[in-house]
Amino acid sequence: MHLAFHPRSVAVAGVSTTGTSWFGGRMFIDGMRHFDRVKRIYALNPKGGTLADGTRVYADLSAIPDDVDLLISAVPAPTILDLIDAAAAKGVKVMHLFTAGFGETGDAERVALETEVMRRLTAAGIRLIGPNCMGIHSPITGLSWMADTSCDIGRIGMFSQSGMNATMIVDGAERRGLRFSYGVSYGNATDLNECDYLEYLAENEETDIVLGYIEGVKDGPRFVESARRVSDRKPLVILKGGQTEAGSRAAGSHTGSLAGSIDIWRGVSRQARFIVVDRIDELIDMAVAVQFLSRTAGRNVAIIGGGGGASVLAADACSRAGLFVPALADATQAALGEFIPAAGTSIRNPVDITSLWHGGDEFRRTVEIVAADANIDMLIVHFNVDGASITDRDRAEANLLTHMRAALEVSAKPIAAVTHPPRTPDGMAMQGRLYEQLSAMGIGNFRSIEECAAALRRFLDWREASA
Amino acid sequence: MHLAFHPRSVAVAGVSTTGTSWFGGRMFIDGMRHFDRVKRIYALNPKGGTLADGTRVYADLSAIPDDVDLLISAVPAPTILDLIDAAAAKGVKVMHLFTAGFGETGDAERVALETEVMRRLTAAGIRLIGPNCMGIHSPITGLSWMADTSCDIGRIGMFSQSGMNATMIVDGAERRGLRFSYGVSYGNATDLNECDYLEYLAENEETDIVLGYIEGVKDGPRFVESARRVSDRKPLVILKGGQTEAGSRAAGSHTGSLAGSIDIWRGVSRQARFIVVDRIDELIDMAVAVQFLSRTAGRNVAIIGGGGGASVLAADACSRAGLFVPALADATQAALGEFIPAAGTSIRNPVDITSLWHGGDEFRRTVEIVAADANIDMLIVHFNVDGASITDRDRAEANLLTHMRAALEVSAKPIAAVTHPPRTPDGMAMQGRLYEQLSAMGIGNFRSIEECAAALRRFLDWREASA
Repeated sequence: MHLAFHPRSVAVAGVSTTGTSWFGGRMFIDGMRHFDRVKRIYALNPKGGTLADGTRVYADLSAIPDDVDLLISAVPAPTILDLIDAAAAKGVKVMHLFTAGFGETGDAERVALETEVMRRLTAAGIRLIGPNCMGIHSPITGLSWMADTSCDIGRIGMFSQSGMNATMIVDGAERRGLRFSYGVSYGNATDLNECDYLEYLAENEETDIVLGYIEGVKDGPRFVESARRVSDRKPLVILKGGQTEAGSRAAGSHTGSLAGSIDIWRGVSRQARFIVVDRIDELIDMAVAVQFLSRTAGRNVAIIGGGGGASVLAADACSRAGLFVPALADATQAALGEFIPAAGTSIRNPVDITSLWHGGDEFRRTVEIVAADANIDMLIVHFNVDGASITDRDRAEANLLTHMRAALEVSAKPIAAVTHPPRTPDGMAMQGRLYEQLSAMGIGNFRSIEECAAALRRFLDWREASA
Repeated sequence: MHLAFHPRSVAVAGVSTTGTSWFGGRMFIDGMRHFDRVKRIYALNPKGGTLADGTRVYADLSAIPDDVDLLISAVPAPTILDLIDAAAAKGVKVMHLFTAGFGETGDAERVALETEVMRRLTAAGIRLIGPNCMGIHSPITGLSWMADTSCDIGRIGMFSQSGMNATMIVDGAERRGLRFSYGVSYGNATDLNECDYLEYLAENEETDIVLGYIEGVKDGPRFVESARRVSDRKPLVILKGGQTEAGSRAAGSHTGSLAGSIDIWRGVSRQARFIVVDRIDELIDMAVAVQFLSRTAGRNVAIIGGGGGASVLAADACSRAGLFVPALADATQAALGEFIPAAGTSIRNPVDITSLWHGGDEFRRTVEIVAADANIDMLIVHFNVDGASITDRDRAEANLLTHMRAALEVSAKPIAAVTHPPRTPDGMAMQGRLYEQLSAMGIGNFRSIEECAAALRRFLDWREASA
């Protein structure tokens, strides 16, 4: 298993030397070159030749003048058995089959082919990632199918049965300032399955939280044990695809999974004590909560920002999600009342304050006073990046960042930032920059009050249950 | 009431001739000029002068050489009584007080001022919109506080106690291709209140659906009757701010409302048969559902697009929301199987098809076959505007629009488009253009599968209850 994540040398079979499509063996070469950690990389194609970047393409696995720990296959399913035989002869340790078109098609011949693949690999002592998946993504090892992710090493682990969802998780999380340790897209899970990955990530000291997307579980009792092994050490968050009959039918076509009933799944989650979510963005929210807000003492939040109507809805959303939005102490309100005008604003909690984009020290003073209230555990600051009042965007953005930096200095309590969903390209661009800068400061970023509140509540529930 | 929406002449008091802030009396002048339907517009400021656009500023209401039907006040609260006296002398019919700082502050003096305002207005026979609100927005009449909205006339009515939420509703809805008839932001509702606006919109034949944001209700029994009067004729959708204790506290500071308990509210919604939502975007979703998808025969949806993992989650989301995602008939699957490859795709429903951005007629053929399935009532097409496979954005966008236009021609059943939340400014820009173009074709646009499914379910529940 360690070798699957840490191969000393990697060969990729089915690398097109002429094709213009990015979707194929080239992805894995490009991904490794992007990280530049794996140095012994070999490309394979029966036609030989060279890639655009000068990489030599070997016609045959046996022609590679080196050992090959990991062989990534992007060849079509009908030719896979020949490649496996060659891998066995070469002494390959692990194969990753990006190759699809096996049991998941429901076709009897393809099901039989998958069985034969497994038989030959087992005979050769080769472990299998996949088939029908994108394989390993790890900034630590430098393996990936993505050449546009961050090269920074983080402390988030990820396992996803779907390659597309794996990409969505990594991409979305990185945009919110998160970074990964080890991840895997593992498809049909014919050999190595979710339990193997969970066990690796449970013991792994480079990983603080594990995010997963699962369609089906191969071995229920082992899964409970593996998941529990993670939960005992760090938060495990799982999005289960195929919770409904229709979703389960789709999962059958997608990864050949038997999705099982939602009632069984709920029971499993209670036994193994992992956190359950329903959307990919909620997986990411959990990682933001754990990474940036886990030192919150409890559920009492102060809500700052917005303006009247937004404050009302924010307070409702937090309360509905199971957080508390207590009225600020009289002394706190009195201190705020000294510089916040009464007309059209509230200082009771939520605190309306719309001057985040302007100069002055109103925001810092507000945070300092609110954070000192003994009844408050955490601050949620929310704002709208499309606001008509933002006339000079560069100035406004610089002001907000200055205010947030000052706020961190005067608050001993964690701060979350909620950027209401942008509706304009300018707003979206600003959101992207704010996510990056604010998370670098140590502020957790969320896409909406609802999602921020739900993530906090889930984290606090898990922490209490684990205490 | 008719005159509140249809003034023949409008004066705005408190128009700054020098200030650089957009937030004040100038907003209303700019709004009317933008629509250019109200021709008799007068600006007031004790200092007189002229505006940048040459508009003459009168020092005194009595100096205006015309009758004034509607007087909009942007003067500070402490000077409001003088303005009311002048309005009484001038024979003004309706006043809109943008002016804030009354009962909502909780300050005893300000509460008394609001009472006195109401006493003098009543004595003078002047009706009041507000105070503490943005007033009327109507493309039909040409009144607005927004100079950047569409001038197109639509068939959506809106009433919102919060001005900011009113702006969010109009802006968000217009971006999704919706247009308005009459709307109002009505603040403290000291005189004209939600019931008056509801009754106007109920009878109004230019309005097909009514969206509302309410913090507190002044007169429970009358509210039930007014709301029911709308629901008997057209869908009424209400977002209630202040559903929780914390939200209610915020509503008290915001519009001075007594928000009431959520249990009472639930009972009211059942009696008056309106549709309840929790977020502003859900209000907009309901308008999209009513405007574009109301001819769906039932709850059976086909899901097209996405790719494997996204399809699984889409099917789960629709099922969880209370829609049905039936397996396509054998004959339908056989017809699809003729041109959709088996590896890595599903044709059972959801139908994976990722060629929306490319040329060819795969998508049109898919829609034609699926729409002909007797067990399907509606089609949901979903796609990701950030996709790495979109290398030539202009070409991809043109292809998608061509496919959608062709799809409409071969489908007798309504089609909804779901653009998964963009993560990049380019994706957001593309989403904006697609919303506009697709809605112009007659396709309803949603921000996520979850929201699309929830809106459809709410609409179908309401339709069944109204049958």
